[in-house]
Amino acid sequence: MDAQVTFLDQAEAIVGTDNVVRVTPKEGYIDPYPLNAGRAKWPGVRPASVEEVQRLVRLANELGVPLWSFSRGKNLGYGGPEPRTRDMVALDLSRMNKIIQVDDQLNYAVIEPGVTFFELFEYIQERGLKVWISVPALGWGSVMGNALDRGYGMTPMGDHVQSVCGMEVVLPAGDLVRTGMWAMEGTELGPIFKGGFGPTLDGIFTQSNLGIVTKIGLWLMPWPDVYINGDVVVEREEDMPKLVDILTQLRREDVIQNNALCGNVVRAATMNGPRSRWYTGEGSIPDDRLEEMRQEMGIGQWNAKFAIYGDKGLAERRLEIIRERFAGLDSFTVKARLYEGSEGARVAYEDIADIDRTQMAGVPTLKPLSTVSWAAENGGHIDAAPIIPARGQDVWEFYQEAKELYRRHGFDLYIGYHLYPRHMVHVTMIFFENDNQEQLAKARALYADLLAAARKRGYAPYRSHVDYMDVIADGFDYNGHALRRLQETMKDALDPKGILSPGKQGVWPERYRAAVAAAL
Amino acid sequence: MDAQVTFLDQAEAIVGTDNVVRVTPKEGYIDPYPLNAGRAKWPGVRPASVEEVQRLVRLANELGVPLWSFSRGKNLGYGGPEPRTRDMVALDLSRMNKIIQVDDQLNYAVIEPGVTFFELFEYIQERGLKVWISVPALGWGSVMGNALDRGYGMTPMGDHVQSVCGMEVVLPAGDLVRTGMWAMEGTELGPIFKGGFGPTLDGIFTQSNLGIVTKIGLWLMPWPDVYINGDVVVEREEDMPKLVDILTQLRREDVIQNNALCGNVVRAATMNGPRSRWYTGEGSIPDDRLEEMRQEMGIGQWNAKFAIYGDKGLAERRLEIIRERFAGLDSFTVKARLYEGSEGARVAYEDIADIDRTQMAGVPTLKPLSTVSWAAENGGHIDAAPIIPARGQDVWEFYQEAKELYRRHGFDLYIGYHLYPRHMVHVTMIFFENDNQEQLAKARALYADLLAAARKRGYAPYRSHVDYMDVIADGFDYNGHALRRLQETMKDALDPKGILSPGKQGVWPERYRAAVAAAL
Repeated sequence: MDAQVTFLDQAEAIVGTDNVVRVTPKEGYIDPYPLNAGRAKWPGVRPASVEEVQRLVRLANELGVPLWSFSRGKNLGYGGPEPRTRDMVALDLSRMNKIIQVDDQLNYAVIEPGVTFFELFEYIQERGLKVWISVPALGWGSVMGNALDRGYGMTPMGDHVQSVCGMEVVLPAGDLVRTGMWAMEGTELGPIFKGGFGPTLDGIFTQSNLGIVTKIGLWLMPWPDVYINGDVVVEREEDMPKLVDILTQLRREDVIQNNALCGNVVRAATMNGPRSRWYTGEGSIPDDRLEEMRQEMGIGQWNAKFAIYGDKGLAERRLEIIRERFAGLDSFTVKARLYEGSEGARVAYEDIADIDRTQMAGVPTLKPLSTVSWAAENGGHIDAAPIIPARGQDVWEFYQEAKELYRRHGFDLYIGYHLYPRHMVHVTMIFFENDNQEQLAKARALYADLLAAARKRGYAPYRSHVDYMDVIADGFDYNGHALRRLQETMKDALDPKGILSPGKQGVWPERYRAAVAAAL
Repeated sequence: MDAQVTFLDQAEAIVGTDNVVRVTPKEGYIDPYPLNAGRAKWPGVRPASVEEVQRLVRLANELGVPLWSFSRGKNLGYGGPEPRTRDMVALDLSRMNKIIQVDDQLNYAVIEPGVTFFELFEYIQERGLKVWISVPALGWGSVMGNALDRGYGMTPMGDHVQSVCGMEVVLPAGDLVRTGMWAMEGTELGPIFKGGFGPTLDGIFTQSNLGIVTKIGLWLMPWPDVYINGDVVVEREEDMPKLVDILTQLRREDVIQNNALCGNVVRAATMNGPRSRWYTGEGSIPDDRLEEMRQEMGIGQWNAKFAIYGDKGLAERRLEIIRERFAGLDSFTVKARLYEGSEGARVAYEDIADIDRTQMAGVPTLKPLSTVSWAAENGGHIDAAPIIPARGQDVWEFYQEAKELYRRHGFDLYIGYHLYPRHMVHVTMIFFENDNQEQLAKARALYADLLAAARKRGYAPYRSHVDYMDVIADGFDYNGHALRRLQETMKDALDPKGILSPGKQGVWPERYRAAVAAAL
């Protein structure tokens, strides 16, 4: 660890004493994945500019000290602010938080890594710009960090990484590169056109340890005339496949314009928790109690939410089509609320009822935080969210298997599916008491079983806690792990000293590989 | 050239004698960019399977013989079937032409490189599958080749490379890799979800010499209920900025659902050519003659086309909004034709009038071929198509500059703009007589001037003929050509022997670089 101490000493001359963290204040960084209570604390540095990032990276190369970069926004890191091993230094980009440009004619922004969803939202509202942003469940994180780690929101532009257009990146050896059209000096086209000349490189800097992204172009949606927030309530559990097929067909036809959300009774109860309010027995809440709970809450076994945006005439016809598709199916009810501006103006956020001023309207909140208190006041959770095909029958089969696994391990199955045109995110959550080591061990066992069940069907999570990156990456095994060989070839070429986020998403630089292979 | 002869001899054992071309039959390969009549002929090999591609690549590594891969479909290569230098061997993938899957529930296909637009279209029509494809101006090329070289069509999914989801690739050293979710053995998710675990690699195989793509997943659109083909006719040349701003705003709001096309009088005349029918003088056709021609043809100075797809009620409201936006502007006329199926069925191609059964309806044709006969029966053309921001004023300024350059060099300015939400393709064409060396030299001088004028404004073409790849790549000069350094680092890591398509898009492997730098 001598090299690490030398790095921190010399980093003071680059970022200033106040921005070198020798012992991590655990209370300062909230770990979104507190799986491993015994994990070591870690030191960190907080650069304020691209030039400081370059100097830190060069110093890290010189001393052979690995950095773990993240852009946490004000509170949370995306992909975790916690390095994979103790020898790494956290590279915290939250001080680089400039909103460089928001263009509401062509609908894009240019931002730095530290900009949070709250900040971008407020910037736009204060200036009355005619764009809406897309936000994830919690608004306090980094807009860029979320997009680069393939997070999602619930507007028409909810697949956030698809809205990234052009990047500025500090490479692991210290060079500064801009991608796509942005690679021309003096151009405006960086955040405007996704192509360029030659291979497109943006993708290699997503979920990646091949570079530290210091600016991105981000596409935004036009501020709509009207906004509809709708619900589909389904009374019977077994009608879920039909719900999935109808909703995703509507999405493929672009009648529903966002990725619909579909939650179960446990999910609704977590927003009206804690668990002890609803059930105090051991093991999963039984089906008959869930049916009672659903009736007490006046909801369905499945509760889907969708949204519509734009011209009022179009919005009304879209809603009509949605109603037509569900008409005549008993057990299904469609409800919807249309919001519009007064006197022909576009809808303003003040026009929207509080209950619908949500993620679907691009409004950042912290509301979903309450769900983590389901098991206990100071509760934790593991997010088990494989990607699966958006076919009702496939979803139903995997749901049945997940339900059985939750029952076997004694947890309540929380479901919050996100439905896209062709795939869906099969989000389930495992809630536990943070200081209950026995329960934590069970939660980890359940997660491992869920991973294995998913892999058996050809499914995998789209991201993960650092503790599971190697095992998930190992499932990508076509042609004897050809993808890993390729990722490693690129890693070694771009980061010959192996200093940038070693092990992120299971990609290790050469100097770590023998030890990791032995541990797997 | 001894190594090349040895390669061809040994290739016979891999692909069979009939699939080794010793002297290229020029009449077999139609060069889409016949700029350089004196260019050397080239030898080629035609593998039929992934395994044959791997064996050829390994042989090329062993012998140090460079390959120039392309997927030409039945006739044309995308990016050109012609290698950059004489020592290269063409690797023609047109025999690999299997349509592996078309899924009309989730709307995707899995195809090999040799599949043409005509073939994919016919496959779908014969089976009555409920999807539409997107096609470029000419339907005889490779679907995959077009997408990988960032070609475009005119449906809602007209930015073809954005519809690619998952790839199978033979790497330059011979390894076989699948990207994204497809990197799992036994998964269905390859063509369904664009992410994966770790860095996304699909982009690096577009406009690229980092691998030979042997399969792709390709997203398709649902077969719509109705189809509207619309026109906006604009009488005055100077109203173009207004036209661009209104159409692109409608596109950003997703009222118009495809990338609208906007052509000028010369473009219309090329479809009713040859030039001698309209004008026999020297130099550009003068403005007053263009005004006469427009009146004779009964068209506008600008003639835009757009399309609408889907539910009839939605389609009609979309058209109403479009009419509202242009209402009250004199010089602008909106016309449109709605096509629907009989008795509530979806619109069939037989329901659509011949004039509208075009690219906008995903119908492959060869009609635009006639335009190349503008200058002479056996005419050629150079496509000068920089990307520029979709702002009326910017377009107008660049148009004025292009018009002046065409006038100065004595050519007729053909314009066929493609309007996207944030960018547009500023397509102009230079037509010449193929056997007129003096005119060809002038055409090349004009193209060089257009490139320089574009670069000065921060614009660049999104693809090019092989002859111009180095000069265009040289314009991507941020931070002393940092992007080139990165592209070269990746090239050398993945292709250490420098055998795959050296020089494509200006990216050269190490062994060529000194010579290329000296020539620039």
